[in-house]
Amino acid sequence: MRPSGRRPDQMRSVSFEPGFSKHAEGSCLVRFGDTHVLVTASLEERVPPFLRNSGRGWVTAEYGMLPRATGDRMRREASAGKQSGRTQEIQRLIGRSLRAVVDLEAMGERQVSVDCDVIQADGGTRTASITGAWVALHQCFSWMKEREMIKEIPLKDHVAAISCGIYQGTGVSDLDYAEDSTADTDANFVMTGSGGIVEIQGTAEGDPFTETQFNELMGLAKASIRDLVEMQKQAVA
Amino acid sequence: MRPSGRRPDQMRSVSFEPGFSKHAEGSCLVRFGDTHVLVTASLEERVPPFLRNSGRGWVTAEYGMLPRATGDRMRREASAGKQSGRTQEIQRLIGRSLRAVVDLEAMGERQVSVDCDVIQADGGTRTASITGAWVALHQCFSWMKEREMIKEIPLKDHVAAISCGIYQGTGVSDLDYAEDSTADTDANFVMTGSGGIVEIQGTAEGDPFTETQFNELMGLAKASIRDLVEMQKQAVA
Amino acid sequence: MRPSGRRPDQMRSVSFEPGFSKHAEGSCLVRFGDTHVLVTASLEERVPPFLRNSGRGWVTAEYGMLPRATGDRMRREASAGKQSGRTQEIQRLIGRSLRAVVDLEAMGERQVSVDCDVIQADGGTRTASITGAWVALHQCFSWMKEREMIKEIPLKDHVAAISCGIYQGTGVSDLDYAEDSTADTDANFVMTGSGGIVEIQGTAEGDPFTETQFNELMGLAKASIRDLVEMQKQAVA
Amino acid sequence: MRPSGRRPDQMRSVSFEPGFSKHAEGSCLVRFGDTHVLVTASLEERVPPFLRNSGRGWVTAEYGMLPRATGDRMRREASAGKQSGRTQEIQRLIGRSLRAVVDLEAMGERQVSVDCDVIQADGGTRTASITGAWVALHQCFSWMKEREMIKEIPLKDHVAAISCGIYQGTGVSDLDYAEDSTADTDANFVMTGSGGIVEIQGTAEGDPFTETQFNELMGLAKASIRDLVEMQKQAVA
Amino acid sequence: MRPSGRRPDQMRSVSFEPGFSKHAEGSCLVRFGDTHVLVTASLEERVPPFLRNSGRGWVTAEYGMLPRATGDRMRREASAGKQSGRTQEIQRLIGRSLRAVVDLEAMGERQVSVDCDVIQADGGTRTASITGAWVALHQCFSWMKEREMIKEIPLKDHVAAISCGIYQGTGVSDLDYAEDSTADTDANFVMTGSGGIVEIQGTAEGDPFTETQFNELMGLAKASIRDLVEMQKQAVA
Amino acid sequence: MRPSGRRPDQMRSVSFEPGFSKHAEGSCLVRFGDTHVLVTASLEERVPPFLRNSGRGWVTAEYGMLPRATGDRMRREASAGKQSGRTQEIQRLIGRSLRAVVDLEAMGERQVSVDCDVIQADGGTRTASITGAWVALHQCFSWMKEREMIKEIPLKDHVAAISCGIYQGTGVSDLDYAEDSTADTDANFVMTGSGGIVEIQGTAEGDPFTETQFNELMGLAKASIRDLVEMQKQAVA
Repeated sequence: MRPSGRRPDQMRSVSFEPGFSKHAEGSCLVRFGDTHVLVTASLEERVPPFLRNSGRGWVTAEYGMLPRATGDRMRREASAGKQSGRTQEIQRLIGRSLRAVVDLEAMGERQVSVDCDVIQADGGTRTASITGAWVALHQCFSWMKEREMIKEIPLKDHVAAISCGIYQGTGVSDLDYAEDSTADTDANFVMTGSGGIVEIQGTAEGDPFTETQFNELMGLAKASIRDLVEMQKQAVA
Repeated sequence: MRPSGRRPDQMRSVSFEPGFSKHAEGSCLVRFGDTHVLVTASLEERVPPFLRNSGRGWVTAEYGMLPRATGDRMRREASAGKQSGRTQEIQRLIGRSLRAVVDLEAMGERQVSVDCDVIQADGGTRTASITGAWVALHQCFSWMKEREMIKEIPLKDHVAAISCGIYQGTGVSDLDYAEDSTADTDANFVMTGSGGIVEIQGTAEGDPFTETQFNELMGLAKASIRDLVEMQKQAVA
Repeated sequence: MRPSGRRPDQMRSVSFEPGFSKHAEGSCLVRFGDTHVLVTASLEERVPPFLRNSGRGWVTAEYGMLPRATGDRMRREASAGKQSGRTQEIQRLIGRSLRAVVDLEAMGERQVSVDCDVIQADGGTRTASITGAWVALHQCFSWMKEREMIKEIPLKDHVAAISCGIYQGTGVSDLDYAEDSTADTDANFVMTGSGGIVEIQGTAEGDPFTETQFNELMGLAKASIRDLVEMQKQAVA
Repeated sequence: MRPSGRRPDQMRSVSFEPGFSKHAEGSCLVRFGDTHVLVTASLEERVPPFLRNSGRGWVTAEYGMLPRATGDRMRREASAGKQSGRTQEIQRLIGRSLRAVVDLEAMGERQVSVDCDVIQADGGTRTASITGAWVALHQCFSWMKEREMIKEIPLKDHVAAISCGIYQGTGVSDLDYAEDSTADTDANFVMTGSGGIVEIQGTAEGDPFTETQFNELMGLAKASIRDLVEMQKQAVA
Repeated sequence: MRPSGRRPDQMRSVSFEPGFSKHAEGSCLVRFGDTHVLVTASLEERVPPFLRNSGRGWVTAEYGMLPRATGDRMRREASAGKQSGRTQEIQRLIGRSLRAVVDLEAMGERQVSVDCDVIQADGGTRTASITGAWVALHQCFSWMKEREMIKEIPLKDHVAAISCGIYQGTGVSDLDYAEDSTADTDANFVMTGSGGIVEIQGTAEGDPFTETQFNELMGLAKASIRDLVEMQKQAVA
Repeated sequence: MRPSGRRPDQMRSVSFEPGFSKHAEGSCLVRFGDTHVLVTASLEERVPPFLRNSGRGWVTAEYGMLPRATGDRMRREASAGKQSGRTQEIQRLIGRSLRAVVDLEAMGERQVSVDCDVIQADGGTRTASITGAWVALHQCFSWMKEREMIKEIPLKDHVAAISCGIYQGTGVSDLDYAEDSTADTDANFVMTGSGGIVEIQGTAEGDPFTETQFNELMGLAKASIRDLVEMQKQAVA
């Protein structure tokens, strides 16, 4: 049924490689099948202007794709001179998702910049980025705790994400590129470890979808995210 | 309860002024309370490169805000030299929403550029833009039909949008700025006249939200959009 | 004679709608016939670097056109990534014209940013902008005076502007687009209420013009600006 | 009276050095006292899109200043990433002024790009540029005529320019920087050899000026431009 | 002596991982110690304008660094809106170096775009990029040969590169970051398999260097590049 | 043999015109045959951020070409909105070369900005720029010494540069454009008055070159630079 032979509710093989980077305070190479994203979390002793002298910290995110991460080479954004609307949309989503589970007060007046760079793409790069970023962020906070910069790891919960869609009339979890490019409906879900919803982005690519279909996708997402959170726990154990 | 004294399911006063612009093939000044958006639909005899010689048309959208549409003056994007991530996100949403109800084949190899310019902002500018854009687009297609460029108006359905949110623990429809800036959760719904879902964008501003809360917002949105579609019908009658 | 049927010295119907904007300290929707410009005056508690700690204030202006303010849709400058030479020329002219009648010392170390956005264009947008901006500026200063930020309204005089030209051999006042696009000569005059000249910009579009012709235009301009100043007085009364 | 000791109607020492550039089809190093501008006229076998297949040619101009042409070093525009509003205003003026005396039909479907680069500035760079550009353009057209690309030199007349101003209450011609930076009023005049007016740009730097004052400046300009045209004739003889 | 304990002429551990990328026609992950560069070679059926209809092909290169490839996070060039001078210098060097050994005629009118993205940096990123790029390019050409797009692999020779320097008075090969940041002199050598010199870039960071010192570096480079070429041979065997 | 009839080791006629600019603290018009570069050295009482409060100064350089300095008109970089990779490469080289002979400590916490603007190009613009910049810098430092801002001229040595190449099989010094555009190998050498090497940049334009050839070029460069240094001495005497 699915091009990959997966069951409707079956995610691709997911793995986390924390500490992938020699230099960053936190890092994680996250793989959802053939989608590979390198996430680094960089601690910086400065905050955006609107937080100066507030005692609160900030977590921000940037997203990029290597030019040949995809089937056809895409123009390098640094050379084009600007980030596409898609790139900006994704990095804003990643930042908001992470901040939803960070205790910004407790992290002190510092910034963590999370960079999500897609080394190879096969669908679901934004959801893999969010899920891997939590692991990199956790490692960064552990690094800070070891140095007694903070007392506790200022994470209120896990956060993970999955993309689900209606593929040939059936709801399926963790779309790969072959499915994503032909799916009728595509929805990204970002949820916490305790099941709270952080973000929902549902889009009808062709015909509009129904509330029933949407609820089916929500059900698939809840189950997948529950599994992803378990894997995050093992990755940082 | 609500700063404006509205009932939870009560929208602001909504009005459409089609044909507001002297020059554009289609136009509409749409007002949701103190949010005023001027939408123009401009017919152009060219299509994006990927559609050349395909016989299919395209609808695209751009969004802007006058610098002092808001409480504090914002920097003019033309002078800053680029559109913000927020602007790009919104104009991509408007374009997708409109294309979901246009028969691109039937409109012929032409492009309609929809410009949504916020003259005054009080929350809900993107949803007002989508709702007003349908009216402007309808007028543009009528203009084309009168000139026998097309046989029928190539709109498969209505499309309208509303933003709902959890304000002080209660689900409310059509958030104004006072509510939007303090709401816990904010979700934008784009639906068709026949109740199909085109886009859902839900964001937890503070704490994550529950599935129950989300379903409450969806219920409010369905009712409001039903009303908006009725108003669109009168506007183009 | 004139496409609009006007007499040579007859301006279009001119109106001012002060307080058009809900948010701005000063605002005015000015109409010269089908040319409609929304002007806002925004008070900001900062000045350009060269005035810091000088005790003097500043008035600056920006100008923009909605993409479909004109007969053909023009590319949005925010999307193009820069303001055209024409836009910059016009906003520099508006700023200089306003500063010529403002007592910068008396307004204190603050800046008023004047935004002139053309909602609909039919010729003469820069002169309508200047004329309406004086009204918006007056309202902004009144707002400041009410709050006892300043003792007197720091305006030394009125300032208004008109474009005149040689149309089919005859000097005419307040060119509309039909005239402007075919006129041999086009001159913009900016003058004060007491008849002082602030700016003159005369351009031969085709053949050079004579000193006699130029003096004829100056005469028309003086009469029209006298009328505009009267209308400004009523608008702020 | 004047810092330079000149009489009110006395221009600085003016010289033209045609053929200054080894590579360009036409060129001229023009000096108005310590203001030195290198003008090149480059023939290109292409025209702007709006003239393709029209049989008509085009003359366009660009203007630049070396960073240390002035008393204080200015930021290099190539490094700043954009041309200032002032630069764009000036180059548009130069282009319009030259086109006013060129028979675009007769020059054939080609473009001449005129580059005016200020090597050293001491006031009046735009008027020196226009005056020198006519000489460079004449040389470029002569080059074309020698090669039988055109039958006659397609110049309908001379064009030259001068800046005049009210300095300490007196009208003076050809302002240098010391005068320009303190003058009350500054007006640039562009006129043809036969006395026609091509452009007038008058600006009150401080107080508004009167019609009488303006006419005094016009008189000075006419006399100076008559002299400049004589010098142009000798330069191309 | 050397921070890493290496002998003066000893390179770091070097490895090539061809075919690292799922999508690209050619690819190689090259490691010089802790410097890791992912190189992809993308075949495109278009050439730069100056080669159209020439029958000749082109090889071009782009270079980038992930923001946290380095000890401190660097600003993302896509977000800064332009590539730094250093980036442009490096990618021009890579392109020239590769073209020196490619038979552009034999590859047909096509372009190969080589992307060198530094995943982790520890000195010598440009020389690792060139050395790995040859392997990726070889794989891309093999891919083309398998599909009978070309008869032979259009590589005239190997090309590889190494950076050598004077570290604490001694010439050493393959500088790592600890050496590079304190070396007196730094020289990059690009040579072919047959010992021809393609590029030399020598820079005195502090005091100027002598011809004797330079010759010592050249000797080290020749030996190291001979070894690198052997490793390239094994990598593509 | 050489298009210009010069002997292999013969440079073009070289001249320095110090004090060419009226405004700059130091300046020099340098000519290598038909290559003419105007260099200005501008003293600024500020340093880059990384040197603030360090007591050390800085020398930086910018490079530009007038659009028609070359045989074909090139696009103006200010109008293109960015400096080319070539421009950035050259200005970085000039800056490094000058700093190699400046005692940054002794010049105090100030910056000298060196602008090298190519008025006319005939090959060797970067080496002429460096050679002339030393003279302009010397004049700037003399200006400072006269005003007792510094005790001694903070130049540790001369620095000069020459481009040599293999032209039709023979090593030649000071390539002009006719040679440069067809030479097999092109190498730029930057050396001090005492014979130290500051920079070497050698590039094989076609076939790789040999170590023997390279040493031949180095020999030519040493002799030519020795002559250039003598001429610099006379220029500042």
